[in-house]
Amino acid sequence: MSADLEILIRTALEEDIGSGDVTTSCTVPPGAQGKGRIVAKEPLVLAGIDVARQVFWTVDSELKVHLPLKDGHRAIEGDLLLEVTGDLAAILKAERTALNFLQRLSGVATLTRAFVDKVEGARARILDTRKTTPGYRFLEKAAVRVGGGYNHRFGLYDGVLIKDNHIAAAGSIQKAVRAAVDSKAHSLRVEVEVETLDQLAEAIAAGAHAVMLDNMDLETMAEAVRRTKGKIPLEASGGITLANVGEIAATGVDLISVGALTHSARAVDMSMEVEPT
Amino acid sequence: MSADLEILIRTALEEDIGSGDVTTSCTVPPGAQGKGRIVAKEPLVLAGIDVARQVFWTVDSELKVHLPLKDGHRAIEGDLLLEVTGDLAAILKAERTALNFLQRLSGVATLTRAFVDKVEGARARILDTRKTTPGYRFLEKAAVRVGGGYNHRFGLYDGVLIKDNHIAAAGSIQKAVRAAVDSKAHSLRVEVEVETLDQLAEAIAAGAHAVMLDNMDLETMAEAVRRTKGKIPLEASGGITLANVGEIAATGVDLISVGALTHSARAVDMSMEVEPT
Amino acid sequence: MSADLEILIRTALEEDIGSGDVTTSCTVPPGAQGKGRIVAKEPLVLAGIDVARQVFWTVDSELKVHLPLKDGHRAIEGDLLLEVTGDLAAILKAERTALNFLQRLSGVATLTRAFVDKVEGARARILDTRKTTPGYRFLEKAAVRVGGGYNHRFGLYDGVLIKDNHIAAAGSIQKAVRAAVDSKAHSLRVEVEVETLDQLAEAIAAGAHAVMLDNMDLETMAEAVRRTKGKIPLEASGGITLANVGEIAATGVDLISVGALTHSARAVDMSMEVEPT
Amino acid sequence: MSADLEILIRTALEEDIGSGDVTTSCTVPPGAQGKGRIVAKEPLVLAGIDVARQVFWTVDSELKVHLPLKDGHRAIEGDLLLEVTGDLAAILKAERTALNFLQRLSGVATLTRAFVDKVEGARARILDTRKTTPGYRFLEKAAVRVGGGYNHRFGLYDGVLIKDNHIAAAGSIQKAVRAAVDSKAHSLRVEVEVETLDQLAEAIAAGAHAVMLDNMDLETMAEAVRRTKGKIPLEASGGITLANVGEIAATGVDLISVGALTHSARAVDMSMEVEPT
Amino acid sequence: MSADLEILIRTALEEDIGSGDVTTSCTVPPGAQGKGRIVAKEPLVLAGIDVARQVFWTVDSELKVHLPLKDGHRAIEGDLLLEVTGDLAAILKAERTALNFLQRLSGVATLTRAFVDKVEGARARILDTRKTTPGYRFLEKAAVRVGGGYNHRFGLYDGVLIKDNHIAAAGSIQKAVRAAVDSKAHSLRVEVEVETLDQLAEAIAAGAHAVMLDNMDLETMAEAVRRTKGKIPLEASGGITLANVGEIAATGVDLISVGALTHSARAVDMSMEVEPT
Amino acid sequence: MSADLEILIRTALEEDIGSGDVTTSCTVPPGAQGKGRIVAKEPLVLAGIDVARQVFWTVDSELKVHLPLKDGHRAIEGDLLLEVTGDLAAILKAERTALNFLQRLSGVATLTRAFVDKVEGARARILDTRKTTPGYRFLEKAAVRVGGGYNHRFGLYDGVLIKDNHIAAAGSIQKAVRAAVDSKAHSLRVEVEVETLDQLAEAIAAGAHAVMLDNMDLETMAEAVRRTKGKIPLEASGGITLANVGEIAATGVDLISVGALTHSARAVDMSMEVEPT
Repeated sequence: MSADLEILIRTALEEDIGSGDVTTSCTVPPGAQGKGRIVAKEPLVLAGIDVARQVFWTVDSELKVHLPLKDGHRAIEGDLLLEVTGDLAAILKAERTALNFLQRLSGVATLTRAFVDKVEGARARILDTRKTTPGYRFLEKAAVRVGGGYNHRFGLYDGVLIKDNHIAAAGSIQKAVRAAVDSKAHSLRVEVEVETLDQLAEAIAAGAHAVMLDNMDLETMAEAVRRTKGKIPLEASGGITLANVGEIAATGVDLISVGALTHSARAVDMSMEVEPT
Repeated sequence: MSADLEILIRTALEEDIGSGDVTTSCTVPPGAQGKGRIVAKEPLVLAGIDVARQVFWTVDSELKVHLPLKDGHRAIEGDLLLEVTGDLAAILKAERTALNFLQRLSGVATLTRAFVDKVEGARARILDTRKTTPGYRFLEKAAVRVGGGYNHRFGLYDGVLIKDNHIAAAGSIQKAVRAAVDSKAHSLRVEVEVETLDQLAEAIAAGAHAVMLDNMDLETMAEAVRRTKGKIPLEASGGITLANVGEIAATGVDLISVGALTHSARAVDMSMEVEPT
Repeated sequence: MSADLEILIRTALEEDIGSGDVTTSCTVPPGAQGKGRIVAKEPLVLAGIDVARQVFWTVDSELKVHLPLKDGHRAIEGDLLLEVTGDLAAILKAERTALNFLQRLSGVATLTRAFVDKVEGARARILDTRKTTPGYRFLEKAAVRVGGGYNHRFGLYDGVLIKDNHIAAAGSIQKAVRAAVDSKAHSLRVEVEVETLDQLAEAIAAGAHAVMLDNMDLETMAEAVRRTKGKIPLEASGGITLANVGEIAATGVDLISVGALTHSARAVDMSMEVEPT
Repeated sequence: MSADLEILIRTALEEDIGSGDVTTSCTVPPGAQGKGRIVAKEPLVLAGIDVARQVFWTVDSELKVHLPLKDGHRAIEGDLLLEVTGDLAAILKAERTALNFLQRLSGVATLTRAFVDKVEGARARILDTRKTTPGYRFLEKAAVRVGGGYNHRFGLYDGVLIKDNHIAAAGSIQKAVRAAVDSKAHSLRVEVEVETLDQLAEAIAAGAHAVMLDNMDLETMAEAVRRTKGKIPLEASGGITLANVGEIAATGVDLISVGALTHSARAVDMSMEVEPT
Repeated sequence: MSADLEILIRTALEEDIGSGDVTTSCTVPPGAQGKGRIVAKEPLVLAGIDVARQVFWTVDSELKVHLPLKDGHRAIEGDLLLEVTGDLAAILKAERTALNFLQRLSGVATLTRAFVDKVEGARARILDTRKTTPGYRFLEKAAVRVGGGYNHRFGLYDGVLIKDNHIAAAGSIQKAVRAAVDSKAHSLRVEVEVETLDQLAEAIAAGAHAVMLDNMDLETMAEAVRRTKGKIPLEASGGITLANVGEIAATGVDLISVGALTHSARAVDMSMEVEPT
Repeated sequence: MSADLEILIRTALEEDIGSGDVTTSCTVPPGAQGKGRIVAKEPLVLAGIDVARQVFWTVDSELKVHLPLKDGHRAIEGDLLLEVTGDLAAILKAERTALNFLQRLSGVATLTRAFVDKVEGARARILDTRKTTPGYRFLEKAAVRVGGGYNHRFGLYDGVLIKDNHIAAAGSIQKAVRAAVDSKAHSLRVEVEVETLDQLAEAIAAGAHAVMLDNMDLETMAEAVRRTKGKIPLEASGGITLANVGEIAATGVDLISVGALTHSARAVDMSMEVEPT
């Protein structure tokens, strides 16, 4: 577990537990033992199960945690996802935080899987974006992979993506791409966002390593694929939904990036049943 | 701004910018000035605008940020939400992180407002829950208030909420409530979750200060309201949606708690237009 | 052990050891083994023994620490409180910091126990206040419990306590109490500070869940108890000493809060004898 | 202000305020202005006034804080120590934490001053020890200076002080002192603790730069002073109280170290009166 | 200034100043004012001057710091590099830490400039490596740029560089390069390390975006340049010194990476003269 | 391992690995096992081997690390310094950071040893200075000891060293030394920097505990030794090189301080060979 994740878990527990779980301290006898079972309450793709386990261990390192399923598993309603045994008060303290992580990350994986399933058979890969919950970039990008998606660049530092603002500042697509290709960052590929076929041609001529087709209609997109002939990857972006992703993939693009994977996944439904032992 | 929020913003910028914005450094001339305008692309309730401003200031304390609207404003498509001027490269570095906060928190406020509007005229208040994004408890609960909702307890420490697990451990509703009322935590009210009218009666007899009606049908809920006669607040909980919240409010309950406000709000649509100046 | 306590222990060791224990490095042969024994040098109530052990383990995780007594034990002069064996230099490095914690926390527990003993047989509980050493709220409140006392609210967040300043701002006791009872913080009880019997009546009428009798004389306090008839808890506060706490308890109040427990407890006397082995 | 103090103040406010001052938020209208006045309620030596001011500024950097008196001032009952004006809710949030620092540090200064006054006219300086509240070494040692005392070494790293355990490990006073004087730490003076006049002679012969007379009776101490003839400083230590410190100073020792200055000072009495403006 | 640099400066000051500058506190009257002048004592390329200024400001935010020269300036012996005026004790406290940063970073820039000057007129750029002082990656890479060099990738995350270990694990150059080009990291260029001309041909055929020529002799290197015909950048690496870098550049390679820039630059000579004012 | 070192190692790994080792993730099969061997590529004195091991363990606590040699060992080319086995990807991630620490610290030890060897037989000890890499004070001073050198004071807090600036501020050597000897810092020895024999005499007369001879020529230095007759230690400082340190030691001085040990040691040559297993 990374230091950052450790800090996030501690912060989350701190904000939930604070000066103590007063309900449990009033009602649960000290030393009471128990068992908690997290179960799926709808179909979902599991993600973040290790994080959930770590939440329990952070509250009480002596809890026994059993993980019958791995990240990526397509669970159905009623599936047991995690079983924890040990100090009952500790289980109750960790419950909500563990579920908050697990439902959210599984939500991302489940939504990603829905998109991936829609493009099955096509060459296109489903990509995430930088539209992640601040502080969750790594966790959410991992959940995307768990759901069968691929990661776009992690941040501004590990990929060049020239957008309209950069083109305006540099003067033209051609100038912006040349500047980037010749730049000091010789270890990064250069991708550029275009809106028309002319811009696409200009980008390729300037040496771009990949091109993002921004909000392009299906017909133009298909024509872009034909003209590019696989020389460089083409990425569809903008307004992608479960309803239209299949058609977009059918154009033959290589990559389809979907902001909703991380910015609008709803939490999937789970609950924890606890019983004294 | 609290130290925790400061850390969250720095973490978010660090994970996005890392070793640097290579695209901007290749294409934007050093010292270039610019203006960025964040605009709404759908109707929304604004929340987190101060956080967005702080993101810009954290990247470059000399950026000028103009906020034409305040948190809580019901914006329509095309409304200007924030305008920032200064170093163009700094604006581009901060853009994504500022939007990620703003779209997410406004999403919570917008969803909350939808629930609140549905119960207008009824006595019921819409409450949030502890089902928040880990690390975002304060931010999301603030967004709920911005949307017209109310906050339930912040964590396990500032309210007693006795659930079935606690009742099982204590032996009965009566025992659990008595233990809590007489406990050392004399500054906290005691709320207890019940599923039947008999349990409600037992809870009130034991001295509970509030009762949560868990997944109760509408008719029973209305009867619970009648029998309680306003002596203590009643809270409806479980399976609340935009479709049924109005009927639930019509039963006369005092409080309605909705996990979806924070665990399943989608990001509202905004974008930033940048231009050199 | 919480993350906060871990940080406090590390800070304490860092401020004492800094760049190294130069005396020990000059005089104790590397690798020398030893045994240290912390003994009571006066009657005391032990508190913080786990913290002391953690100090030794933080310096050297291989030290063996034996704890013959538990927190809450009433020790007499000469009682062995802790025995540590292992690397002699490590024991000497940790000695002062371990004692500084242990003498201070046991001081709080010892003073608390003295107050509790004075009210034995009465219904009153001895409470602490928020007058704690900054950064020590949790440790000192735990020591109060160890000494037989009870904790008042932990901070401004987990209990409503309306004082004269709040009443002045709200307009009257009645208005302040009503505002608090109806407020968003529906999980917290509302306590209000009063100085006269009329104010007490006003507070109860307004729905206060508890009342603090501030610097009230014994006779009035007894009358307040009679008039309240156990409907809500009454708390005596202000100028409580070992000399007068018995009389105050005799009035029949439910709670007696004593700032001195944490702001003026003296360190109890202990020492550590070290010998090479 | 050092980074450590900043962290301590933030930690203290965090533990007191947590998720918010619920009483104030219920009873004080948003935007209300006010004035707070901290006054002495008994004679005291003021210490930590800058820390108190910083507490207010940390809560709200726009509060105006007026400090009529400086650290070291001998205040009498009724003296105004600090006046703060601005947002009323902010003043109320900071009040308790500011007082907790100020009463405690002034307590240390006040007790130190009492000891210093007792030895007025003698050559002896009153010294503190390492028996400080963990995490408060710098603050408490500063308060000792404010009270007219002097600081012994700050920790194990900036002074060699050979005690019985070190002597036992090294084999003899002579061996321990020689090892320290010849050691790598050539920038530190070497002080050694002795219990008899023979040990004193041995220490001086071995080249000790200072000697601590541990729990020595007055007569022997006086003889030690005579024999040493001012060649090196002599420090009295062990069992020093306000009752006997005068006699000890009269023996002619150079230094008197008193653990109670920091481990057993009681908080001095102050209060803050707040009024809306 | 980034948060990381702020932490590094605070850490550095903390480790140097600790509990205080005892020499200055003994000898410099409180409140004394002074002026410090940092001057070059040998020819050097200035780097890190903003860091040095920040060190002074961290000790005392009221110091006035004048910077007559900018990073990148080729200074000669006697040149004034920085002038600071204000509290004399603060200047003395900051002196050593400011110089330690400045001499070290200027050392890196000076050595880089020596390499860059040796290849003047050739197409080759001088690159740094990941052989930096742990914790100084950003500072040292900035100093390389100041000296006229270019940065290779910042870490393992922002560039693919396939070395012999990776080739062995993947099975062949061809397999390793294909795997990387087709991988999920579609935003990164793929560079591969080769030792022979055959390997070079294999790498290019597999689609590598750049090739590192590892410890290749001059003749082979020149042949590699001829065969590649500028299709992709070639990087010389291994055993590069000031003595041979000119010949290597003459082969026509595009990039020359030099570990010594950051792992073996000696501190350049500077000193600070201080005078009371 | 101290908390500071732990933080430094984590920072170093974070800056190198960031969002992941993309090369390894493309080319090394998940779960592949391997062995890495760090070998010396030139004669060197080993230092920092525990730090290197800790780097591997921080990346993957299950790596097995074998250390055939201890810090201080004089290794020759080809010597095995560390062997690590386990997850191949983890070994590759840690490699560069481990080497960066090890080559640098061994560089300091190797240079120190060269100086120490040059003065073999003389009474002089080789001392380091405060001219260390910011943040590395403890690590570099430990490496100096490993190379046979001694540590001067660790910072401004654990030794008084009066330089020309302090003398100017105090008025004279005599005044500065007296002030320091009589000061509150009674646990520290007082060393003063002089440039002439007259100043030396003045310093000794004033009670200095040690004297630094600053940039003195050999003859004067020898005369200084004769006149001092061993009463206090004399330290040579300024312009010390491997070429002249022998002659300086021959003057009979007690201590020779050399800034280059830490500010200009070059990294010694090592490499890690990795092979799948």
